[in-house]
Amino acid sequence: MGEEELEQEQEQVVNPWEVSAKDGGKIDYDKLIDKFGCQRLDQSLIDRVHRLTGSPPHVFLRRGVFFAHRDFNEILDAYEGGKKFYLYTGRGPSSQSLHLGHLIPFMFTKYLQEAFKVPLVIQLTDDEKCMWKNLSVEESKRLARENARDIIACGFDITRTFIFQDFEYVGGSFYNNMVKVEKCVTYNKVVGIFGFSGEDHIGKVSFPAVQAVPSFPSSFPHLFSGKDDLRCLIPCAIDQGETGKMSASDPNSAIYVTDSAKEIKNKINKHAFSGGQDSLEKHRKYGANLEVDIPIKYLNFFLEDDDELEHIKKEYAAGRVLTGEVKKRLAEVLTELVERHRLARSAVTDEMVDAFMAVRPLPNMFD
Amino acid sequence: MGEEELEQEQEQVVNPWEVSAKDGGKIDYDKLIDKFGCQRLDQSLIDRVHRLTGSPPHVFLRRGVFFAHRDFNEILDAYEGGKKFYLYTGRGPSSQSLHLGHLIPFMFTKYLQEAFKVPLVIQLTDDEKCMWKNLSVEESKRLARENARDIIACGFDITRTFIFQDFEYVGGSFYNNMVKVEKCVTYNKVVGIFGFSGEDHIGKVSFPAVQAVPSFPSSFPHLFSGKDDLRCLIPCAIDQGETGKMSASDPNSAIYVTDSAKEIKNKINKHAFSGGQDSLEKHRKYGANLEVDIPIKYLNFFLEDDDELEHIKKEYAAGRVLTGEVKKRLAEVLTELVERHRLARSAVTDEMVDAFMAVRPLPNMFD
Repeated sequence: MGEEELEQEQEQVVNPWEVSAKDGGKIDYDKLIDKFGCQRLDQSLIDRVHRLTGSPPHVFLRRGVFFAHRDFNEILDAYEGGKKFYLYTGRGPSSQSLHLGHLIPFMFTKYLQEAFKVPLVIQLTDDEKCMWKNLSVEESKRLARENARDIIACGFDITRTFIFQDFEYVGGSFYNNMVKVEKCVTYNKVVGIFGFSGEDHIGKVSFPAVQAVPSFPSSFPHLFSGKDDLRCLIPCAIDQGETGKMSASDPNSAIYVTDSAKEIKNKINKHAFSGGQDSLEKHRKYGANLEVDIPIKYLNFFLEDDDELEHIKKEYAAGRVLTGEVKKRLAEVLTELVERHRLARSAVTDEMVDAFMAVRPLPNMFD
Repeated sequence: MGEEELEQEQEQVVNPWEVSAKDGGKIDYDKLIDKFGCQRLDQSLIDRVHRLTGSPPHVFLRRGVFFAHRDFNEILDAYEGGKKFYLYTGRGPSSQSLHLGHLIPFMFTKYLQEAFKVPLVIQLTDDEKCMWKNLSVEESKRLARENARDIIACGFDITRTFIFQDFEYVGGSFYNNMVKVEKCVTYNKVVGIFGFSGEDHIGKVSFPAVQAVPSFPSSFPHLFSGKDDLRCLIPCAIDQGETGKMSASDPNSAIYVTDSAKEIKNKINKHAFSGGQDSLEKHRKYGANLEVDIPIKYLNFFLEDDDELEHIKKEYAAGRVLTGEVKKRLAEVLTELVERHRLARSAVTDEMVDAFMAVRPLPNMFD
């Protein structure tokens, strides 16, 4: 590792378990893109998605929430030539209920599935959480099914979606591919990427193969038999853990999909750091600093109306709108989102979970 | 590691891939027993097996081929109290055909199954050979089925025997247990036991869990559901690799179950190191040194008649029997064994392999 790299390492940390900027500041996404060998997801690519799918780009694309990619252009080239692909995302089921940050990759994935009309596999890594969080096998399995309810509630199309939990699904072609991947990855390599120590257990060391394997279509013979060259697109977040919280330092500040309207309002009022000024006079005079304002960050994610968002930002920055008003509007937006999710979740029966997780062909997945 | 241990390490090496004594000498089994925390399998234990099963002890027990154990007494205590156990053994299918050394653990296991009337699981680690020998998944699977034929030809009872290959069977409860075992084993631990380096791939690092798991009855719900406290006895060899060869340094000197009578005779004559003297005169005068004589070692394994063996050893040691005569008798014994095996193997149909490997209950396995 060169000195420059070392310095960069110390500045910000982004790995599967930690996202932290230097001195508690902001993540430098440009540096991150360079370091991970990605490309920027720029306007021309967003326009191309719009043109190819005929669907308006998702708010997460328009506002740069999903900001980088690897080889997305190649997927689109193939798609333009009539070759479809499949989507793969997942979740480690470590808790009973999800917070808003957890929902973001699923909301975006649902948009991609609808826009491109492609199949989707969702991996629930109950084995990972059993190992990392020291949960029992049974408890990890139970949480996976609970989380499947929340995922289904996001509105995925059952004719194109296969949800699986590792403890039930690993085996056969999937296990064959795990071994093939393991053969290609040395211990030194995973230590370089994940930073394991000699006192970490061997389950952690080999786990990367379990998460790599769903990106190969031959891992799902019931879905993709004979389609070994099918490409896979993986929507993923680097910092959904942070996104879900009103205050980075307080895990209780996260808004959960189970929170009541009152809880949401209280969390926003108590924890959401404001970019507004200390006094009404100063606020009217200088306006709010939107760069550090958490309510604005949340509205950027969850308020779909571009015009309204622009209006709020403009008025707030100019000091004509107060923090209290922005927080009130945010509480409305999040309460509506959470209520809608709760309603959808309550409609998800055990039979629906079974149906989404059934090992079955999806004959209409590309229609 | 203390100095004494270090010294011992340098003296002899016994691990899953290498068995070598200091300066090409003999393995010190007493040291090995100490190092691995085993107990000697002494005459009183052999007598107890005889008494409990009513079957005469196998030649491998009588002649100390299987010479050590861990907690075999506890298995026998339980058995005496009416509690049965199950047997677990296995093979890494790295070659099309087996040599005589490979057969030894299976011959002994068959005796144990018959004597104790207990079920047996046989693991074919095609995944291991795919990783270690860099075979393709398909070729490893094919070899596993070929080896299953040889194993079935040893005469196992299909009503008590379940043979499985990892690439087909890993999953479900078996995989759940793999994760549980992995959680208990650190990287440092496996490096201490197996000597991996950082450039070894992560499949090797986590593989010990795959081989540990069959010793837990819950890994086989179709066999042992509700019998989570069933004990497991694992017959295994420390040096079957060596045992199979006439000359430790020449892998071609192994006698394969596919060899013809002529090949067997030639291999014995050409490779089997003799403890006899250089000249007839000296041999008649000093006799043979049985300690280093390979034909005698082989007769000790495979000539079942105790009286005949004792007679040959006595006469040979006294110089009244010549090396050529001993080798001739050995060729007869091995040819008969190999012919019998070949006949049995040719009777093993694809359907029989399927039947032994079917994931099924064994309702009469303890009868």
